Amino acid sequence: MASIDANPPSGTRDFLPAEVSRREHAFATIRTAFQRHGFEPLDTPAFERLEVLTGKYGEEGDQLIFKILRRGEHETTGEADHALRYDLTVPLARVAARYGSQLPTPFKRYQIAPVWRADRPGKGRYREFFQCDVDTIGSDSAVADASTIVAVADVLDALGLAGFTVQLNSRQALAGLIEAYGIPPQLADSTLVGLDKLDKIGVDGVAAELRDRGVAADAVEALVTDLGRDDLADAIRERLIANDVGRAGLAEVDQILDLVGEVPGGRVSYAPVMARGLSYYTGPVFEVVHEALDTTIAAGGRYDGLVGMFQGQDVPATGGSLGIERILLLLEQAAEGTPAPGPDVLVTVMDDAGAADAFATAGRLRRAGYTVDLYSGGGSRKLGKQLKYADRRAVRVAVIRGADERAAGRVTVKHLASGEQATIDDAGLEDHLAGLLGR
Amino acid sequence: MASIDANPPSGTRDFLPAEVSRREHAFATIRTAFQRHGFEPLDTPAFERLEVLTGKYGEEGDQLIFKILRRGEHETTGEADHALRYDLTVPLARVAARYGSQLPTPFKRYQIAPVWRADRPGKGRYREFFQCDVDTIGSDSAVADASTIVAVADVLDALGLAGFTVQLNSRQALAGLIEAYGIPPQLADSTLVGLDKLDKIGVDGVAAELRDRGVAADAVEALVTDLGRDDLADAIRERLIANDVGRAGLAEVDQILDLVGEVPGGRVSYAPVMARGLSYYTGPVFEVVHEALDTTIAAGGRYDGLVGMFQGQDVPATGGSLGIERILLLLEQAAEGTPAPGPDVLVTVMDDAGAADAFATAGRLRRAGYTVDLYSGGGSRKLGKQLKYADRRAVRVAVIRGADERAAGRVTVKHLASGEQATIDDAGLEDHLAGLLGR
Repeated sequence: MASIDANPPSGTRDFLPAEVSRREHAFATIRTAFQRHGFEPLDTPAFERLEVLTGKYGEEGDQLIFKILRRGEHETTGEADHALRYDLTVPLARVAARYGSQLPTPFKRYQIAPVWRADRPGKGRYREFFQCDVDTIGSDSAVADASTIVAVADVLDALGLAGFTVQLNSRQALAGLIEAYGIPPQLADSTLVGLDKLDKIGVDGVAAELRDRGVAADAVEALVTDLGRDDLADAIRERLIANDVGRAGLAEVDQILDLVGEVPGGRVSYAPVMARGLSYYTGPVFEVVHEALDTTIAAGGRYDGLVGMFQGQDVPATGGSLGIERILLLLEQAAEGTPAPGPDVLVTVMDDAGAADAFATAGRLRRAGYTVDLYSGGGSRKLGKQLKYADRRAVRVAVIRGADERAAGRVTVKHLASGEQATIDDAGLEDHLAGLLGR
Repeated sequence: MASIDANPPSGTRDFLPAEVSRREHAFATIRTAFQRHGFEPLDTPAFERLEVLTGKYGEEGDQLIFKILRRGEHETTGEADHALRYDLTVPLARVAARYGSQLPTPFKRYQIAPVWRADRPGKGRYREFFQCDVDTIGSDSAVADASTIVAVADVLDALGLAGFTVQLNSRQALAGLIEAYGIPPQLADSTLVGLDKLDKIGVDGVAAELRDRGVAADAVEALVTDLGRDDLADAIRERLIANDVGRAGLAEVDQILDLVGEVPGGRVSYAPVMARGLSYYTGPVFEVVHEALDTTIAAGGRYDGLVGMFQGQDVPATGGSLGIERILLLLEQAAEGTPAPGPDVLVTVMDDAGAADAFATAGRLRRAGYTVDLYSGGGSRKLGKQLKYADRRAVRVAVIRGADERAAGRVTVKHLASGEQATIDDAGLEDHLAGLLGR
C-alpha cells in the first residue's frame, strides 16, 4: 500500500489551499459580476446518460468523452451507460428541453463548472478543467448579443484584466465579404479559415494560404491589397455595402456597437476578418483579446442551431465563454510572490493547563470579527514550533499566554512580519489588535 | 433526437437558479466559518486512479464505485482505469502522502465537494451528492478534537441551525463500559451496536436486542437498570471509574468538555452509550443532533488509522462531516415561500431606438451598486410581457423609458410588489431608487 502512486491522475490537479483560495476568489468575482447583469446560476450533474453526449461533438470529440461503466449485474459486460460532462452547452440544451416552461424567457444563465476530456495531457492542457459560460436562450434580439459582451467585459474588468479589446464581427458580414471579393461559395469556409490567421501569419502568409486553398489570383490580389491598408475596417465596409448580405451583416455589427457603448475596462471594435470557428455560430461573433498579454481570454457569439437539439426545433441562443483556466493562470502569475492571506491571529497553546483559556481567547477574537487559528498540534508545545507554524500559515499576529501571563491577567501579542511584540493587559487585547491589523 | 429523455441521470439532480443560489449561499457561509477557525480549503480531482479507491470501502463500498473506461486504443477492452471520488477521506490521505512536507503540521483542511456512489436512488438518496468534511491531520492532541467540535458548532450556528446538542463520547470510554459490565470482548462490538440504538428503540428494545446478541442475563440486567435512570451519564461514570480504560476514556471526554466550553448555538454533553460506527474511529467521537428537527446533522471523531494508508504508517487524524445534503434540505424547507431575491432592477427596452439608452441606464445603475437586468427578449416589446418577465425573475423595481419619456428627460419607475409607480426626472433616478430599495 505504501508504494502506491500518490499523484493525482494524469491531466488532473490537486489544488492546495492557497490555490483554492485564489480560484474561489476569482469565481466569486465572476458570479457577482454576472449577477450584477441579471444572469442566473445553473448547475447540472457531472455525468449525463451516454446518449445525451454522443454524436454532439463530432467523431474526434466522441473519442474524448470519458465513459462510465454500468454498475451492478451489468458491470461485467464492460458496457458504458453514462459519461462525464464534456462541455456546458449540451447540458444547457437538455435543461432547456426539460424545464423550458419553468424558466423565464429569455433565460439568462451562467455556469462555472469542471468538464472532462480524455485529451492527451500537456502544458496547460488538462483532462479536468473548468469552463465558464454565459448564455441567453430564447431571444433573437441584438440586445441579447450586446448584453453578453457588456457582461463579459464587466467580469474581466472586475477580475483586474482591464486593457482588452473586444473584436466584433458577424457571420453575415463574413458571407458578404466572400461575395464581395467574388470567392465561390465552395471556397467560403476555407477562405475564412485563412483570413482568420491574419494576426498570426500576416498579409503575405494569408495570401500564400489562400492561393494554396485554391482561391483565384485576382481575388487574392484584391483581398491582399485591402488587408494591407491601415484603414482595413473601412476598406472592407466599403466592399460590403455593395451586396445585400454584406449590408445586413454590417447593420448587425453596427447595432451591437451602438448598444454596447463604452464597455468597462476595454473597447469594442469591428474586426472584419475575424471568423471565430465556422460550423457553430450563426450570427454575431466576438473575441476578447488582451493586448498586453497577447492572448484571447474570452469569445462567443450567436448559435441558434444548438440549444434546441433535444427539442427538435431551433432555439435562438447567444453567449460567451471565458477562457477561465487561462485567466486563472494569468491571475496566478500576477499574484506570484504575494502570499495568500492567512488567518489574522494564531492563538498559541503553551501548556495543557492553558488550553481552555486559549479556546476562550480564540472564541472572543472570532466574535470580534477576526479569523483565528488555534495551535492544535500535539507533542512539544515549544513557542518556536508554534511560531514556525504561524509563519507557514501566513498568520499576521500571534497571541501568546503562558502560565505567568495568565496569572497576571496579561497577554503577549507578536506581530509576525515586523517581529515586534508587546505584553499588555488582557482587557486591552481587542484594541491592541485593531491597531495592529488596521481595524 | 427530439425523443431523447431530457431528465438528469437517475439519482442526480439539476439545480435551477433559485436552488443554486441557496446552495451557494450555504456553501459560502460554511467556508467563511471554517476559515474563521483557521481551516484551509483543499480541492482534488473528481476521479482517481482506480487502485487508489478500490479496497478502501469494504466489499459493499467497492460495488458502489463508478468506474471510468480506459480511453484510446484500450477502450474496446471494457477495462476501467479510473473511478469517481467516493468520499473525501481517501483523496485527503493521498494528498497527505503526496504533499506531506509542503503542508503545515498540523494540517487543518475543509472540503465541500460532490462524491458519487452507484447506490440505488431513493428518497433523499442520490448518486451524486455533496460531502462537507473538516479534518485536522498530524495532531494527536485533544485540542484538535475540540477544535473540530467548536468549528462545526460555529458553522451550524452561522447556517441558522442553532438549538443543537453535541453528544460526545470516546472509544476508550466505550471499551471501559464493556469491561465494567463484564461483557466478554468478543461481544463488545455487537453490544455497542445494540446500545447505540437506545434513542430509537428504548430501554426494553435494547434489552431484547442484547439478549438476542448473546449477552448474559445478569449483564443485560445491570445495564438496563442503569439505562433506565434519569442520571444515566452519572451512573455510567460511576461504573467507568472502576477500570483503567474507563477512567482514561472519561478523562478524554472531560478534557474535551473543558476545552469546548460554551459552543456557539448549542451545548456539548457526554453521551455514554453513543457509539458512532465501530471500525473507523479510534478515539473521541461526536454526533450533532438537532433536537427540534430530531435528526443528526453532523458527526465525527478521531480516526488515527486511515489517513496514513498510502504512507504505510499511522497519521493521527480527527475531524467531522456535516450532513450537508440534509442541512440543505432543512434550509430549503425553512426558505419555502420566500422566493430567492432577484435583480434589484429590470431596465425595460420599449423600442429599438431606445435600446442604447436602456444599456446606458443599466450601466449607470450597476455603477451605483445595483444588480440590473436588462430585458433582452426579441419580438414584441409589450410592457406587459416585460413586467411578467420581471415578476418571474423576482425583480424589485422596473425602470421604463419610452420615446416620450426620453424626449422629455423623464423616466418611469415601478415598484413591482406594491405596484406603485412614478414618473420622475431622469437625473433623480438614483435617489428615487435609493428610497425604494432602502439604500
